[in-house]
Amino acid sequence: MNYSVIFYTVGYILRIEGAMLLLPGAIDLIYGEGQWMWYLISAVICFTFGLILSFRKPKNNVFYLKEGCVTTALSWIGLSLFGCLPLFMSGEIPSFLNALFEMVSGFTTTGASIVADVGVLSHAANFWRAFSHWIGGMGVLVFLMAIIPMTGGSAINLMKAESPGPDVGKLAPHIKETARILYKIYIGLTVLEIIILLVSKMPAFDAFTISFATAGTGGFAVRSAGMGDYSTFQQVVITVFMILFGVNFNAYYYIIYRKFKKAFKMEEVRAYLLIIIGAITIITINILSMCEGVWDAIQKAAFQVGSIITTTGFSNADFDTWPELSKGVLILLMFVGACAGSTGGGFKISRAIILIKSVGREITAYIHPKNIKKINFDSQPVDHETMRSISVYFVIYTLIFIVSLFIVSFDGPDFETNFTAVAATFNNIGPGMKAVGPTQNFDFFSPVSKIVMILDMIAGRLELFPLLLLFYPRIWLDDISHLRNRRVNGKINRS
Amino acid sequence: MNYSVIFYTVGYILRIEGAMLLLPGAIDLIYGEGQWMWYLISAVICFTFGLILSFRKPKNNVFYLKEGCVTTALSWIGLSLFGCLPLFMSGEIPSFLNALFEMVSGFTTTGASIVADVGVLSHAANFWRAFSHWIGGMGVLVFLMAIIPMTGGSAINLMKAESPGPDVGKLAPHIKETARILYKIYIGLTVLEIIILLVSKMPAFDAFTISFATAGTGGFAVRSAGMGDYSTFQQVVITVFMILFGVNFNAYYYIIYRKFKKAFKMEEVRAYLLIIIGAITIITINILSMCEGVWDAIQKAAFQVGSIITTTGFSNADFDTWPELSKGVLILLMFVGACAGSTGGGFKISRAIILIKSVGREITAYIHPKNIKKINFDSQPVDHETMRSISVYFVIYTLIFIVSLFIVSFDGPDFETNFTAVAATFNNIGPGMKAVGPTQNFDFFSPVSKIVMILDMIAGRLELFPLLLLFYPRIWLDDISHLRNRRVNGKINRS
Repeated sequence: MNYSVIFYTVGYILRIEGAMLLLPGAIDLIYGEGQWMWYLISAVICFTFGLILSFRKPKNNVFYLKEGCVTTALSWIGLSLFGCLPLFMSGEIPSFLNALFEMVSGFTTTGASIVADVGVLSHAANFWRAFSHWIGGMGVLVFLMAIIPMTGGSAINLMKAESPGPDVGKLAPHIKETARILYKIYIGLTVLEIIILLVSKMPAFDAFTISFATAGTGGFAVRSAGMGDYSTFQQVVITVFMILFGVNFNAYYYIIYRKFKKAFKMEEVRAYLLIIIGAITIITINILSMCEGVWDAIQKAAFQVGSIITTTGFSNADFDTWPELSKGVLILLMFVGACAGSTGGGFKISRAIILIKSVGREITAYIHPKNIKKINFDSQPVDHETMRSISVYFVIYTLIFIVSLFIVSFDGPDFETNFTAVAATFNNIGPGMKAVGPTQNFDFFSPVSKIVMILDMIAGRLELFPLLLLFYPRIWLDDISHLRNRRVNGKINRS
Repeated sequence: MNYSVIFYTVGYILRIEGAMLLLPGAIDLIYGEGQWMWYLISAVICFTFGLILSFRKPKNNVFYLKEGCVTTALSWIGLSLFGCLPLFMSGEIPSFLNALFEMVSGFTTTGASIVADVGVLSHAANFWRAFSHWIGGMGVLVFLMAIIPMTGGSAINLMKAESPGPDVGKLAPHIKETARILYKIYIGLTVLEIIILLVSKMPAFDAFTISFATAGTGGFAVRSAGMGDYSTFQQVVITVFMILFGVNFNAYYYIIYRKFKKAFKMEEVRAYLLIIIGAITIITINILSMCEGVWDAIQKAAFQVGSIITTTGFSNADFDTWPELSKGVLILLMFVGACAGSTGGGFKISRAIILIKSVGREITAYIHPKNIKKINFDSQPVDHETMRSISVYFVIYTLIFIVSLFIVSFDGPDFETNFTAVAATFNNIGPGMKAVGPTQNFDFFSPVSKIVMILDMIAGRLELFPLLLLFYPRIWLDDISHLRNRRVNGKINRS
């Protein structure tokens, strides 16, 4: 393992985080709530630590998939560990574990909170929480890739480990170029949302933080009442943008380059929109009697469906009080998740489509055993390697979910709470049902359950493998045996 | 599709069922509860219908996998449709759908009941319910195969579609021989249990019905108090036999032929026993404070673990009142299921082992992309075809579960009830938690939910594909187009 390049990259990221920690500090100076020094101190600590790690430029720049995975996992852990310092030091979240949970929830764009009433937090804290969603949203490493010069071959491994979804990296011939385009789309859409919300007379602080949380599909609210405080128009705007950020960004790329046909032919995006329309229809009919007319029902259903399928997790109504059917639809959407190549979490629609197609093929094989065809996705045949990796992904996804549910059920209050708490953190959504419903929070869980959910949030955000690899003994054992070989042979082994 | 052989086989099975329906009639004559004529009438109807279907011997005896699947699915549906007649006609279960649910639950060895108090049912009804478990247990078609002469090649397809688990058929060179051996083991173990229970002074009626329900891993009780009425010794005997019937029958085959080493080296059986010991340990510790000492806790834990993992579904305590952790363990076991090649249901341990190994291989591939090894199971490499089919099985299994849960949540009372009701029927267990807990029943569900669970029970028992194929349009559309071709070309097409 090439440790020097891992340390260098993580250090570089921490330096950037240090700089970014000054932003909430500056926000605090505007509102005069006396929190700025905590952000300044944290910024200095974070920057210094980053400087130490990235002090020596690595001689060997090449790194393989495993280095990419380890770097990614360590970066997110590092970001969260240092990012929670101001919340903890200022006493706004007095428990370190809680502060860590909150920031992991922020950077992984989950939005599950341990804060009972976010309305009493300082503006600086609320800004930092929302901003962490935005940083996490597109993935800090995609951002990095666009600005740090790197050798071409190795960047693709970082990208593969980090990018949200299985098929980023095919857009532009150069990976750096791809990252830049994705980033421009991301910033462009965020700015557009901020402007529209400002024009609709939303207070500037809310317009910014909500746009950050929408863009990252995060879901931290900044008001006690959640989204209920805003006008219907503003809620509709937020609904539309949540859904836009759940679209595969390749679609925007095609639109920018005027390949409209290609954009509208994307199977995943079509399925995504169909699922949204279907879910809104079912829920609207189901909650009609609880709402003030059809439009109110449609708006509430659309907001919640958009919020859950994109794994944002905002709520404008206490959906935990909705009928079982609507709750069932929402729980299903929690697992489906958004499109690959978007900022959303979950299992991802493209994976689900390919798995469902594989079922159809298997049944056909029972009828015509000699006439088995390859599965097509976006008119391209899906190769065996992709098929296998999606199947295994599904298995790992289910296993992690089951193990987490099992550990959380040691202290969770009831099955629905435990189940949706794990679903909401693992899929990076935020609120679940019952005791972790939209009006509740995650504070009551034991430290063990909180640690499990912290790991779930990171695993979910990084598409499982990077975090899993960190806990896989062989990745470290190999190096130990290499070290031993090196001593014996007197020469350097690189793997 | 070779319809004539399908009709012939289904008809043959119905004739046998007709004969078997006389048994509960005879039992009724012993107890003098005036039910015998309903069983006689049903027997006549069933036998006549069977005779009509199997009147003409098919000229073309060969049939393919798809015929095997369709025959299997239709046989189970036929068995249940005619099997529920006496319960319905006698008015003991006045609703036809409920009677059907009860008998599907019987033949699929599920044991989920819509009867509030089985203690008030006639002896004939209780005998028939338990006996249906025993018939279903080893699979009526395995039984058939042993007695109907069939061409060698086609029987393997029936076996593949029907047998519980992926790896039956490798024991003896001749499939008929295999079926006979399995059947002898099955009968032998059942008789052994009956004798031990009789020696322990259990009433003869109970000894027989409970042994039938244990052998088939069914779970219908014949007393209002479930298993609580029996002595500790008797409960221990039942525990041991439940676990024995969940073992892969290949192990017994090896033991009979004195290949002890091979028997004890079976990975699946080892994992099965390890899981049982682990689960008993956790639950014993967890429920200790609710029991009268350690032995009572161990006995209750062992009984319930054995009952759930083998998908029998007996209960000697109201496990719904146990702590969340124990309930969590039991819910997990519901999905794991018993060994392949046993009479139990669920996902099957061998499949789970292979899937978990595939995860390990995938992670290793991240570290050493050029050094990917095949997965071994029982010291044999698992071929690509098996791998793929297990992966797809897992996907279908999950999809059916999700869709069922979704439909049931239209009228189910709460998430835990809905979730465990589907889990308990789909995995052929019987009782779930909360409103479908061991002291409750399934009567309150809407007709739609009951139909979904009926289909789940059959799908689960037949390892998904046979039932799925029945609802797959192409299997019928092909024949329609063949028919059209035949008319056009004036010659016979067979597929």
